[in-house]
Amino acid sequence: MPSSMSGLPFDDIRALVARMPSADEAAVAKIRARDAILTKPAGSLGRLEEIVEWLAAWQAKAPPAITHPLVAIFAGNHGVVRHGVSAYPAEVTQQMVENFAAGGAAINQICLANDLGLKVYDLALELPTGDITSEAALDETACAATMAFGMEAIAGGVDLLCVGEMGIGNTTAAAAILLALFGGVAGDWVGPGTGLDNDGIARKRDAVAAAIACHADHLDDPLEVLRRLGGREIAAMVGAILSARMSRVPVIVDGYVAGAAAAVVHALDERGLDHCLFGHVSAEPGHRRALERMGKIALLDLGMRLGEGTGAALAAGIVKAAAGLHSGMATFVQAGVSEKGTEK
Amino acid sequence: MPSSMSGLPFDDIRALVARMPSADEAAVAKIRARDAILTKPAGSLGRLEEIVEWLAAWQAKAPPAITHPLVAIFAGNHGVVRHGVSAYPAEVTQQMVENFAAGGAAINQICLANDLGLKVYDLALELPTGDITSEAALDETACAATMAFGMEAIAGGVDLLCVGEMGIGNTTAAAAILLALFGGVAGDWVGPGTGLDNDGIARKRDAVAAAIACHADHLDDPLEVLRRLGGREIAAMVGAILSARMSRVPVIVDGYVAGAAAAVVHALDERGLDHCLFGHVSAEPGHRRALERMGKIALLDLGMRLGEGTGAALAAGIVKAAAGLHSGMATFVQAGVSEKGTEK
Repeated sequence: MPSSMSGLPFDDIRALVARMPSADEAAVAKIRARDAILTKPAGSLGRLEEIVEWLAAWQAKAPPAITHPLVAIFAGNHGVVRHGVSAYPAEVTQQMVENFAAGGAAINQICLANDLGLKVYDLALELPTGDITSEAALDETACAATMAFGMEAIAGGVDLLCVGEMGIGNTTAAAAILLALFGGVAGDWVGPGTGLDNDGIARKRDAVAAAIACHADHLDDPLEVLRRLGGREIAAMVGAILSARMSRVPVIVDGYVAGAAAAVVHALDERGLDHCLFGHVSAEPGHRRALERMGKIALLDLGMRLGEGTGAALAAGIVKAAAGLHSGMATFVQAGVSEKGTEK
Repeated sequence: MPSSMSGLPFDDIRALVARMPSADEAAVAKIRARDAILTKPAGSLGRLEEIVEWLAAWQAKAPPAITHPLVAIFAGNHGVVRHGVSAYPAEVTQQMVENFAAGGAAINQICLANDLGLKVYDLALELPTGDITSEAALDETACAATMAFGMEAIAGGVDLLCVGEMGIGNTTAAAAILLALFGGVAGDWVGPGTGLDNDGIARKRDAVAAAIACHADHLDDPLEVLRRLGGREIAAMVGAILSARMSRVPVIVDGYVAGAAAAVVHALDERGLDHCLFGHVSAEPGHRRALERMGKIALLDLGMRLGEGTGAALAAGIVKAAAGLHSGMATFVQAGVSEKGTEK
C-alpha cells in the first residue's frame, strides 16, 4: 500500500497527527476560578460556560479572545455528479463561489450579522475529482497537496475558524466516507442533500454502494478513504481542522459534508476533534448519526441543510457571546451582590 | 367572584384579549414568494425561514425589520421567600437590578454581543408580594396596574421584544402558576432554581403545594391564578406579551418564569402566544414540560437557567440573523445561479 511507505505525503500527515497538542488544563482552571465568582448562580449559563472552557483549553489563553474569527468555505467539483446524484447542475459550484464573492449568499449575511471574516477557497473547480463509483477521487499527491492548501485557512492570526464547503455532489462523497468509516449500509448515510426526489436518492444510494464496492480493499486507512471517496473541499477541510489543532485555533465544524471531513480526523485519532465544536445538526439524516458516532452534541438544531458554513457561522455568534459573558461580567464582590447561601 | 364583575380592571384585560389581532397572511405570502427565489435550495435554512415568516406575520411587514430590538427585564420580590425557597437572599433582587444598571450582569454582555437595547423595570422591590402559601400575592387592582405598567415595555418603536425577569423566589411562584394551569403535582413543576439543595427543593415543593391548597377554590380563572400565585414581574410580563400582540411586536420569551407568564396568556386564549417565540428551554425541569403543554418548541437548548432574559437575548441574535438572511440574499436571477432541476 503506497501510503504506508516512508516519506510519502500521507506520512507527513500522520506525523502531524502524532504531534497534536493537548488541551491547556491550566487555562481551563483559570476560567473555572473566575466563572465561580461571576454574578450568576454556578452553572446557570450551561453550555455557554463549557464553550468558554473549550476556547481557553485550545487557545491556551484565559480569558480566550475572539478578535479574528473566520469562516473558510472550500469549494470543489465531483465526477460522481454524472450519476444524477444532485438536484442542481455542477456549474452551480462555480456560480455560488461568485455569489460568495459578490456578497449575495446566505453565508455572507450571517458573517455580517455575527461580524465574521469570510474566505472562499475554490479548489480546481475546472477539474472535478474522479468518479468514485469506478476510480479514486484523487491520487495521493493531489490529496495531500489539497490538505496542505486547506492548512492555510488559519493564516493571518485567525483565532476561531468556522469550516464549511460548497460542492455540487459532495453529500454523495460525504456519505461514502461515512459509510466507509462507520459501517452500515448506504441508505444509513444517504439523504436528499439539496433536495433530491426519491428517484434521485435511489441513484445516490446506488452510487455510494458502488463506490464502496469499488474501493473495498483499501478502506482501512482513513487517509485512503479520504482520497478515494472524498473530494478536494473535503481534503482541504481535513487539512484546516488539523492545522487549527496544531496552531491552537478552536474550530466550529459546519454540517454534513464538513462532518465527514471531521470523521476522517476522528478516525486518524479519536482525540483529534477535541478542539472542534459542531455548530449544528443538519436536516440531512446521516449527520445526526455521524455526530453520535463521534460522541459530539451539536450546539444548534434548527433543521438547516445548506452548507456554506452557515450552521457554523450561526453558532459562532453564540460562541462569541459566551466569550463576552466570561470577560465582561462583574464578580459578586465588584457588584456588591450577596452570594448563595448567605441566608436560608 | 370580583373579577367577573363588569368594569373591574381584569375585565379590561379580557376585553383586550378578545381583540387580539391575527397573523398577517399577506405578509407571510410575500416572504414565501421571495424565499423561493433566493440562492439556496428550498427549505434549506430550516427554522430560520420559519422565523422570518413569523416576524412578517406579526409585524405585518414584508420584509420584517428589526431596528429597535429590546430586552425588558422585570424585577419583583416575593413574600414566599420566608419559607427558604431560594438559594439566594431576597436582597439579591435589588443588587442585581443595580448590576444591570452598571452593566455587570450576564444580560448586559449578551445585549452588547447582539446589539440589543435593555430596559430594567423594578417593580416596588421594597414591597414583596403576599406569601402565596397563605394569602394572595396581589390584589386585583395592584395586579392589573402592574400588568398595565408592563404594557409600556413596547413604547418607543420597539420592533422585537425579549421578555425576561429577576426576582429571588420567583421560580416558586412560577411553579405554582404552572401547577394551577396545567395540573399534576407540585413535584412536576418544582426544580432547583438558582441552585437549591434537596432540602431546599423539598421546602419549595411544600410551599407550592400549600399555595395551591390555600387558593384551590379560585384557580379556574387564569387572571386569578396570576394575581394569587404570581408576582409583580410575572404580571408585568403578561402585560408586556399582551401589549406586544396588540401593537404587532414579535416577542421572544425567556425561560421558566417568563414561561409561566406566557402560560397565563395561553390560558386566556390558546392563540395568545402565536406572536411569541420561546428563546430557549431551561435546565429547570418544569420548563420543558410547560413548553410541551403550550405546544411550543424552543429555539435553543443549552442548559441555561439564569433568567434575566439571557436565553431570549441569545435567541434574538439568531432571529436578527434570520431577518438579515431574507433581506440580504441575492436571488437566482440576480446572482446568475442555475436553479434546481436544470440538469439531471
